[in-house]
Amino acid sequence: MFAEKILFDSFQNNWQKIIQKLMQFFLIMSPYLFCSSLDLLPALSGEESTKCFFQELVNILLNYVSASFRRNSKVLDFHHPHQLKEGLEGFRLELPDQPENLEQLLVDCRDTLKYGIKTGHPRFFNQLSSGLDVIGLAGEWLTSTANTNMFTYEVSPVFILMEEVLLRKMQEIVGWSEEMGDGIFCPGGTISNLYSVHLARYYFFPEVKTKGMTDLPRLTLFTSAHSHYSVKKSAAVLGIGSENVVVVKCDDRGRMIPAELEYSIITAKDKGCVPIYVNATAGTTVYGAFDPIRVIADICERHRLWLHVDAAWGGGLLMSKRHRMKLEGIERAWSVTWNPHKMMGAPLQCSAILVKKKGLLQECNQLCAEYLFQTDKHYDTSYDTGDKTIQCGRHVDVFKLWLMWKAKGLEGFGSQVNKCLENAEYLFNKIKQRPDFELVFNSKPEHSNVCFWYIPPSLRNMPPVHNVQLYSQMMENGMTMIGYQPLGDKVNFFRCVISNPATQTEDVDFLLEEIARIGQDIKLQLTETN
Amino acid sequence: MFAEKILFDSFQNNWQKIIQKLMQFFLIMSPYLFCSSLDLLPALSGEESTKCFFQELVNILLNYVSASFRRNSKVLDFHHPHQLKEGLEGFRLELPDQPENLEQLLVDCRDTLKYGIKTGHPRFFNQLSSGLDVIGLAGEWLTSTANTNMFTYEVSPVFILMEEVLLRKMQEIVGWSEEMGDGIFCPGGTISNLYSVHLARYYFFPEVKTKGMTDLPRLTLFTSAHSHYSVKKSAAVLGIGSENVVVVKCDDRGRMIPAELEYSIITAKDKGCVPIYVNATAGTTVYGAFDPIRVIADICERHRLWLHVDAAWGGGLLMSKRHRMKLEGIERAWSVTWNPHKMMGAPLQCSAILVKKKGLLQECNQLCAEYLFQTDKHYDTSYDTGDKTIQCGRHVDVFKLWLMWKAKGLEGFGSQVNKCLENAEYLFNKIKQRPDFELVFNSKPEHSNVCFWYIPPSLRNMPPVHNVQLYSQMMENGMTMIGYQPLGDKVNFFRCVISNPATQTEDVDFLLEEIARIGQDIKLQLTETN
Repeated sequence: MFAEKILFDSFQNNWQKIIQKLMQFFLIMSPYLFCSSLDLLPALSGEESTKCFFQELVNILLNYVSASFRRNSKVLDFHHPHQLKEGLEGFRLELPDQPENLEQLLVDCRDTLKYGIKTGHPRFFNQLSSGLDVIGLAGEWLTSTANTNMFTYEVSPVFILMEEVLLRKMQEIVGWSEEMGDGIFCPGGTISNLYSVHLARYYFFPEVKTKGMTDLPRLTLFTSAHSHYSVKKSAAVLGIGSENVVVVKCDDRGRMIPAELEYSIITAKDKGCVPIYVNATAGTTVYGAFDPIRVIADICERHRLWLHVDAAWGGGLLMSKRHRMKLEGIERAWSVTWNPHKMMGAPLQCSAILVKKKGLLQECNQLCAEYLFQTDKHYDTSYDTGDKTIQCGRHVDVFKLWLMWKAKGLEGFGSQVNKCLENAEYLFNKIKQRPDFELVFNSKPEHSNVCFWYIPPSLRNMPPVHNVQLYSQMMENGMTMIGYQPLGDKVNFFRCVISNPATQTEDVDFLLEEIARIGQDIKLQLTETN
Repeated sequence: MFAEKILFDSFQNNWQKIIQKLMQFFLIMSPYLFCSSLDLLPALSGEESTKCFFQELVNILLNYVSASFRRNSKVLDFHHPHQLKEGLEGFRLELPDQPENLEQLLVDCRDTLKYGIKTGHPRFFNQLSSGLDVIGLAGEWLTSTANTNMFTYEVSPVFILMEEVLLRKMQEIVGWSEEMGDGIFCPGGTISNLYSVHLARYYFFPEVKTKGMTDLPRLTLFTSAHSHYSVKKSAAVLGIGSENVVVVKCDDRGRMIPAELEYSIITAKDKGCVPIYVNATAGTTVYGAFDPIRVIADICERHRLWLHVDAAWGGGLLMSKRHRMKLEGIERAWSVTWNPHKMMGAPLQCSAILVKKKGLLQECNQLCAEYLFQTDKHYDTSYDTGDKTIQCGRHVDVFKLWLMWKAKGLEGFGSQVNKCLENAEYLFNKIKQRPDFELVFNSKPEHSNVCFWYIPPSLRNMPPVHNVQLYSQMMENGMTMIGYQPLGDKVNFFRCVISNPATQTEDVDFLLEEIARIGQDIKLQLTETN
């Protein structure tokens, strides 16, 4: 009774304060704690709550975008798989049977970004695709809002036409005349390269489509030792067999040696194989080397082989007046892979396969499924692109690139490419001057790849070694990110690629300083523990 | 002088008004007229302008989302390709050499949506993928903001783990034990089906990866007459040949007849072919039929064939306690295609291939490119999924599904599926009652596909005909959208599919009324002109 009396008195004296506290509590508590996705559209009164929910989401996303460009923010906050799976700070990956509230979803969005990688950070040098083009991003948001499919004109009228316009422009830049040229956007460079082999095989042996490979002779493909593994992968998938890809030697700069190519072709013929296809790489993955397309084209003409140019990485240089001569002869290719999501900075994914011969894509792939591609439609069904592809449904990958092109123009893309290559040259020159770094090859980079070792003071004048501990420490620090790999007889080395227009020379300086600093620290630790 | 005097007096008298007008002019003029993408991030002071630009964009996008759910808004505003290419109301598709201003980009975004299709509209019945799940949309916006790639754990730690969690859950729902199960998300159901054939071939003839098909016997695949064309397409791409796909007869409901399958297998063997693979469809594209998986699995066991279940469309029914028995026996499949972007309403694209045998995907596809998949990394590299795929880079298709699963739970997906199927049954019952419509087959729909003809009064008791004029008029009106196709000996008929949870019975009613009304109008016109 006494206690109750006190409580009652206290309430009487403080009721205003208590109500105030309660109100504060409810104001601080997010309204999303009490809402689920069922309160959003298409719920009857869901319009307002949907807008509020997206407002919260957009704040999270735009703060992330801003942080991505801030140099003092981390590129990554590394955790091992088992750590993330255990549920860091309540971030649970498991899928529930019952719905969770909107507040939890927003927290999950925040956490997903927190434990991810800022691929748009000016100090992210890890991949051929980097940067965060905000116009491209706007394009992606619209694309997902439109949520449609590229297979027919009726469900994608605008995007189908944009694809046509983009492909035409890219063909023009490659150097093909109006009468030539076809193509399609597809899910990544490896699939683009697969298309090229698929088309080459069909071109020489159209019966393969219905009869298969069983009665065909042993087909042979040629690609350089430094080329991307996708030619081999295509051979494995298409039933040609990875061993029927002949790997042609490169010079020490990573470029295919044309004489070696011709020798390989003749040797294959002597063995009774049937050469059909040569892949020339414009911008190799590791060294960024450009195969001499013109000379290779001459050889292909002599032997009547399909010439494909894998310009997944190097295609962007076609946009620059200063650098496009590195792809000289590309107009003689029968097909070209070009990934705008690499050097042109389009968000992932955006990859095109361009084909010189009109109609071949359609012939090679069409099955005329009448339930999808009816021929009696009330519009021009040549715009239904679905039957040209090896897919059925196809994601809209063109709008972001179209919007970026509107925003930058050809010239904007050109200066973007020039800037990345200038930064790579800056890095190259810096390394040449420093005793604690060694270049993997000494010539000026053709693309924006720069390959090097860090050489701690104690190991100067010794063969280079790669310190995995150094790499792992860089990942833990998370202030920059760069890849490494071995190649041929070279032990693990760093490969820096610059495709992010946000990167400045100060970021390049930072990269070298960070490696040297960590290398020094590890050296000290090792000394102390010994 | 006199004129000047008047002007000066007028200015003296009206200067306040003039300044007011000027201010109004600048307030009305968008600031984006004077800004280009170079003013946005990563520009030094670009943070604020980027936020403002995105705010404008988000307004456009969210208004579009709201309009998508509004019944009185049009599903589409149809224009022929040549009309759009001519540049409607200043909407120019051509790509410029010089940059355009931000205002123009926003106008372009608005126009792109205006001339597109509202696939989320409750009266869009045209595709197996429809609806606009706002949580899924939020997931897509985050995915594109994160802009990364699924090939290695180091660049996609969170998404790689989410993929694992989702695949494990889907395998569990299919009915596989902990010891079984592997898989990957890939660009669409056709590619998923291609994986299944690719894996089956490798399982029986692992040497195909290196040696190719040349020395292999004639492989044979089996699929039903109503199945998706992707099995044939896979055979064409993989070098098996489309003619080596045996098409098995269906009953009049579109289900594979098991006795016919066994007969076909025996016949193929007698001809010296080597059967390796059977595709059973769970939810055919047109009729929505479910092949009897259990009986087919028995046959596959007897003949030791790879059983694939193409549940691209029907997989969603596994989420519903009420409907999952339609896929009875799916746990006996060796591989399963399941597209959450269809019946589960995830935004495009979201498709999984599930594989029963652990490790097979990796074995079949890996090429161990050391420059990408280094084995000496400082974390558990079994999380680098890139070498399991036929791609290299891979788009992040999992986050939206993960977020939707959090938002709905298993139960939410279940009731969503139930609702769509209820609406389909409602449509089926309506049609049965009306004399002006005729069902293509008379049994209750197994999935949400309902196939029918419209029969104008003058043509009752005659064989059904399809009026292309009616369809084209529907497209021009733009108030609803539904597909049509012929099948076997049936002339063109409408196929209504309901996969949008926003669709209500009133929308189903509207569809029938709209068809009947237009059919009537066309009839009248024809009578008048005669």
